[in-house]
Amino acid sequence: MAAQSKPRARDLGIPFDGTPGPLNAITDVHGVEVGYTTLISGSGKLKVGEGPVRTGVTAVLPRGKNVFGDPVFAAWYSLNGNGEMTGTTWVEESGFLEGPVMITNTHSVGVVRDAVIQYRVQHNNDAANSVWWGLPVVAETYDGYLNDINGFHVKAEHAFHAIDSAAGGPVQEGNVGGGTGMICNGFKGGTGTASRKLEAKDGGYTLGVLLQCNYGQQEQLRIAGVPVGRELPPGIPRTRDEGSIIVVVATDAPLLPHQLKRLARRVPLGLGRDGSYSGNGSGDIFIAFSTANPGAWDRKGVKSLSMLPNDEMDPLFLATVQCVEEAVINAMVAAETMTGINNHTVNAIPHQELQDVLRKYNRLLTAK
Amino acid sequence: MAAQSKPRARDLGIPFDGTPGPLNAITDVHGVEVGYTTLISGSGKLKVGEGPVRTGVTAVLPRGKNVFGDPVFAAWYSLNGNGEMTGTTWVEESGFLEGPVMITNTHSVGVVRDAVIQYRVQHNNDAANSVWWGLPVVAETYDGYLNDINGFHVKAEHAFHAIDSAAGGPVQEGNVGGGTGMICNGFKGGTGTASRKLEAKDGGYTLGVLLQCNYGQQEQLRIAGVPVGRELPPGIPRTRDEGSIIVVVATDAPLLPHQLKRLARRVPLGLGRDGSYSGNGSGDIFIAFSTANPGAWDRKGVKSLSMLPNDEMDPLFLATVQCVEEAVINAMVAAETMTGINNHTVNAIPHQELQDVLRKYNRLLTAK
Amino acid sequence: MAAQSKPRARDLGIPFDGTPGPLNAITDVHGVEVGYTTLISGSGKLKVGEGPVRTGVTAVLPRGKNVFGDPVFAAWYSLNGNGEMTGTTWVEESGFLEGPVMITNTHSVGVVRDAVIQYRVQHNNDAANSVWWGLPVVAETYDGYLNDINGFHVKAEHAFHAIDSAAGGPVQEGNVGGGTGMICNGFKGGTGTASRKLEAKDGGYTLGVLLQCNYGQQEQLRIAGVPVGRELPPGIPRTRDEGSIIVVVATDAPLLPHQLKRLARRVPLGLGRDGSYSGNGSGDIFIAFSTANPGAWDRKGVKSLSMLPNDEMDPLFLATVQCVEEAVINAMVAAETMTGINNHTVNAIPHQELQDVLRKYNRLLTAK
Amino acid sequence: MAAQSKPRARDLGIPFDGTPGPLNAITDVHGVEVGYTTLISGSGKLKVGEGPVRTGVTAVLPRGKNVFGDPVFAAWYSLNGNGEMTGTTWVEESGFLEGPVMITNTHSVGVVRDAVIQYRVQHNNDAANSVWWGLPVVAETYDGYLNDINGFHVKAEHAFHAIDSAAGGPVQEGNVGGGTGMICNGFKGGTGTASRKLEAKDGGYTLGVLLQCNYGQQEQLRIAGVPVGRELPPGIPRTRDEGSIIVVVATDAPLLPHQLKRLARRVPLGLGRDGSYSGNGSGDIFIAFSTANPGAWDRKGVKSLSMLPNDEMDPLFLATVQCVEEAVINAMVAAETMTGINNHTVNAIPHQELQDVLRKYNRLLTAK
Repeated sequence: MAAQSKPRARDLGIPFDGTPGPLNAITDVHGVEVGYTTLISGSGKLKVGEGPVRTGVTAVLPRGKNVFGDPVFAAWYSLNGNGEMTGTTWVEESGFLEGPVMITNTHSVGVVRDAVIQYRVQHNNDAANSVWWGLPVVAETYDGYLNDINGFHVKAEHAFHAIDSAAGGPVQEGNVGGGTGMICNGFKGGTGTASRKLEAKDGGYTLGVLLQCNYGQQEQLRIAGVPVGRELPPGIPRTRDEGSIIVVVATDAPLLPHQLKRLARRVPLGLGRDGSYSGNGSGDIFIAFSTANPGAWDRKGVKSLSMLPNDEMDPLFLATVQCVEEAVINAMVAAETMTGINNHTVNAIPHQELQDVLRKYNRLLTAK
Repeated sequence: MAAQSKPRARDLGIPFDGTPGPLNAITDVHGVEVGYTTLISGSGKLKVGEGPVRTGVTAVLPRGKNVFGDPVFAAWYSLNGNGEMTGTTWVEESGFLEGPVMITNTHSVGVVRDAVIQYRVQHNNDAANSVWWGLPVVAETYDGYLNDINGFHVKAEHAFHAIDSAAGGPVQEGNVGGGTGMICNGFKGGTGTASRKLEAKDGGYTLGVLLQCNYGQQEQLRIAGVPVGRELPPGIPRTRDEGSIIVVVATDAPLLPHQLKRLARRVPLGLGRDGSYSGNGSGDIFIAFSTANPGAWDRKGVKSLSMLPNDEMDPLFLATVQCVEEAVINAMVAAETMTGINNHTVNAIPHQELQDVLRKYNRLLTAK
Repeated sequence: MAAQSKPRARDLGIPFDGTPGPLNAITDVHGVEVGYTTLISGSGKLKVGEGPVRTGVTAVLPRGKNVFGDPVFAAWYSLNGNGEMTGTTWVEESGFLEGPVMITNTHSVGVVRDAVIQYRVQHNNDAANSVWWGLPVVAETYDGYLNDINGFHVKAEHAFHAIDSAAGGPVQEGNVGGGTGMICNGFKGGTGTASRKLEAKDGGYTLGVLLQCNYGQQEQLRIAGVPVGRELPPGIPRTRDEGSIIVVVATDAPLLPHQLKRLARRVPLGLGRDGSYSGNGSGDIFIAFSTANPGAWDRKGVKSLSMLPNDEMDPLFLATVQCVEEAVINAMVAAETMTGINNHTVNAIPHQELQDVLRKYNRLLTAK
Repeated sequence: MAAQSKPRARDLGIPFDGTPGPLNAITDVHGVEVGYTTLISGSGKLKVGEGPVRTGVTAVLPRGKNVFGDPVFAAWYSLNGNGEMTGTTWVEESGFLEGPVMITNTHSVGVVRDAVIQYRVQHNNDAANSVWWGLPVVAETYDGYLNDINGFHVKAEHAFHAIDSAAGGPVQEGNVGGGTGMICNGFKGGTGTASRKLEAKDGGYTLGVLLQCNYGQQEQLRIAGVPVGRELPPGIPRTRDEGSIIVVVATDAPLLPHQLKRLARRVPLGLGRDGSYSGNGSGDIFIAFSTANPGAWDRKGVKSLSMLPNDEMDPLFLATVQCVEEAVINAMVAAETMTGINNHTVNAIPHQELQDVLRKYNRLLTAK
């Protein structure tokens, strides 16, 4: 698979705690599918409306193609709300995520949001013919340093394609989908993922994370606890933390909405390990869902549910923190140097130099 | 029962919507018990520490005497937080209410809070012998106009007695328990209760409310939609809304914590019917719990639960609004004129004049 | 002015408390402007994409045309989140509303949201040429009973026009802007407004409300405290409260963001007076802003601000409750009978019969 | 000063980012005072009510002895609410902290809470003679592994003493005040503090943290990014994260309440650096206040305030993260081995071995 031909953070010998699932990806959670539309075209000077274009759309489908038919329990949390995630007011109220989680650039949230409704109308007789409304969940990060963001290049069909192309299996990382034009900790950012498989004694659940990372300052970057940011050659200068990070947490553990909020609230603990201080300009918004309890949403009649006791949630908390810590680094390791508008170039984090710094601090494993 | 010998709001011919349970009380929710300690002593000039005393403690036990053994799902909401309800941070986090809801005066929250822990330690070997901690829920309203509040007359044993005396059946209203020294909408306030029994087609659930009401200005008081406050003879002058109202909502409908929060958020709609604007000085804090799903809290192993769909909650929302509207008036109708510190006197709302005003507006039913 | 040629609620003799500003409209708050695009075309059977169309866009500009240049302190609250208001995560985080409040139908939130960004890009060199992003506030209510909502008839230019047409002065009510296709308490709903002017001793501030009301069941409707819904001839049957209400509260009182949230939390008290129980299907979302403290948002340097003490907020709380109570009824009184898709007809509340019911309950003033 | 005679984390050569204030303590924020009552008595087998006693009370006074006369802007945040911080509902509503922040053991919150009211009544004629109420802020962590917590050894006078003994200058760390019986990351925990002084170009503000740390598992402990927990000899076995951490953030930067909440939300980023995953049993509750804007609370008349723009908050966010990271380690370094009830012993983190591990990872500075 192309998706896995690039080295990932562990392949470089970076140490992380915990046991990943088979793919070390959000798709290790059974049923979860990920799709992308990646838009890359043009080069040279920005001409608003004509490009260059470096953007895209990401779709996370909690139950694959049945995304609209069987909503999942969900909850969200905003660490720093300089961003957008539509639909969260209903997630908070109802306890359900009733469609996919879409991620795109800041100025294309609207088109993607209406497109999800349109998609459903076109694919669902109930939606088209009856009193039905939708409140899609669409999040964003800003890609205007590389992308002609005010050219509004994302169209409804790009959202449709991201949904249609969603699949299980290995998940592409780096410059793909909504993550195409991202910058993270001074280097090229993008999409990253990771997962953890709990031990049988802890329920054997799987928890996975997918994130679109666009935040941070190089100076603060820590990898495996090592302050590598200060020792690597300078990437792009960024005087402030102006980006954002959107995090999607998925699990098959039977958690209720208020318990899923507890997962979402742990995301900052993982970001903290990587050195984030969540700057004013950062939209750090997180959503967590559980694929357990199929059928819970059905409108009629008392539902039978399963719930994990609060007292047994600790391994899931730890898995969340570990996955976030690793998925950010996975995104950075996978992202490749990109040149966008006005010949702005953002370099990938240099793998060799990164390994050298980790070795200096006795934190490099023997690379696989 | 003495508790029912006084007329209640409906007995005066005041119209309310909906169908109450047999007792029109929170105890119509199976298992819920209410207990009081009422402290009334002394008269005349205030001598801090000596009285006069006009205060007390109220205890609401969600599952009667098994209050500590089997926590209930719960949630809370603060309309105006000029008040205290301890333990809510854990209610919010865990989704559970792990003991009784206690209500007392503002300056006795602490003693009652520690007393609940002490009570449990004394009655439970687990608590006494193992690593165990408690985060009791204790709320308050201010009774310093009638009571020697800075004399700290509430002691641990008064909290114990309120718990021990809790019972099902008819619920005393007016000048009892924590509600002893209350003032509401310019007249004597106190404790009030009401319930609604849903139709079978709506699940046949019961929802009940108990409240300690101490808020409001006479000028704003509406009863059955009639602005009676302006037409009744003046009660005590109060230039501001300086009191508070604590509301406990109980139901046997199988609601999850995030759904119970939805009930708590409806309480203001009921207060609005009675004319409240929730002044700055008012501590308007509400807690809702469900007695369904016994055993949900048990620490070990995945639990099987029941959940009512969001789409079937409307009758419970309406019942909450109706119960709050009625329970405030029940508290006022039951409360009797009281004289407290420094010969401060607060008059009961005059029943006859109230009926006259309602009749003027064609809103008086034939009194039962 | 056409806007004022129709009778308003007070013109019918309906009694409300408090003293309105000169226009009894949100535009009594100095600087606030309101603009509409109203889309009405076609008739007969629904053909998705072709109509009939009964929808629109409303724009509320806190500081008129300087809406983007000088953001206002703001806060929001969701009573029942079955709806959308984009941009609220940043309002909550930053304390500022950085552009207009837009209101449209549920399925057009996205197009209006991106259009606000596009509008700013086109009108502002800074936005077009520099690193700039926008998180517009766009809310919605559902008009699919009358409007071809899945035809997506709202376009970017309709949002532009609503902004461009914004003005102070009298505010049109009823079937205008985003309120065109609304249903409220069983009758035709739409846009409504009201204001209150505080007494000089209370600071002399002005507070105004504009709302798009689409919620409620006829059976629950109370006007001036009278349960008129049950006595009026039946409007459309609605078995559930499936609509929504968006409320915008504006004031010139110098309130900080956390104080504006206190205003937003009072909106339910006003809705309660009109009989709402905020059904599961209702998106009841409110935003409050203050036009005081111009320049507060400027990015550089410590700002000097004014703040009203919490202890002096009570008249503003009461004004909020009163304005909400009245603006809902203003919307209903102004809205005219409308026929939309599939010949669905929603009747206006009958003025004469309404007066008759109020008279029966001795609650009709001599009509002006 | 005895307080400073023990080595602190930096004295051992542990590297931290940023520039501390002169004392590297919360008292670097002008006006902030800290007081303690430390209760240590008895040894051997637990006899409930008789000891051994290993507990205490901590008082943080935002404006020193004028703590009640001039409240400070404040906000709070709960990362994991398995704990108590009374008074937060009013902090959230009003934007003010109206007295000290008190910290004690879990089962003594009530007595300390009422004692703060009593203290004020005794020291303030207004409080004693007029309609006045108080809603003290009292937080806790659990010390029942070392302390006879169910013996309720904390009395009102211990709270009085903590307030009375408060002073500026160096701050004792480790086994003092409420932190006396704490356990942190498998070793002895307690009270810790740290501060940062911003550069003049960033406003030159000071930000300080005081925390009572009782959370964590040894296995997760990271110091300066190094996973030292796994390399140190085993401390006490703890299978779960059952403790808690209370964090107080103080600054002289002119922040409004909603901005202070932003500081409180950054605390987890600092805890993340130290390896926390915030277990289910942990009460991780944080409060932040600003000593700027004296007089803001006064009840009468519009106030003039200063506010730092959101765009200039980043250095304060980073300082918060850095102070939390360091103060936890300061608490652990200062805490000394303690034996409590039933001869339970909790070892201090071994300084020499800790230095050895850091050296192994090239993360030990030359010790001062």
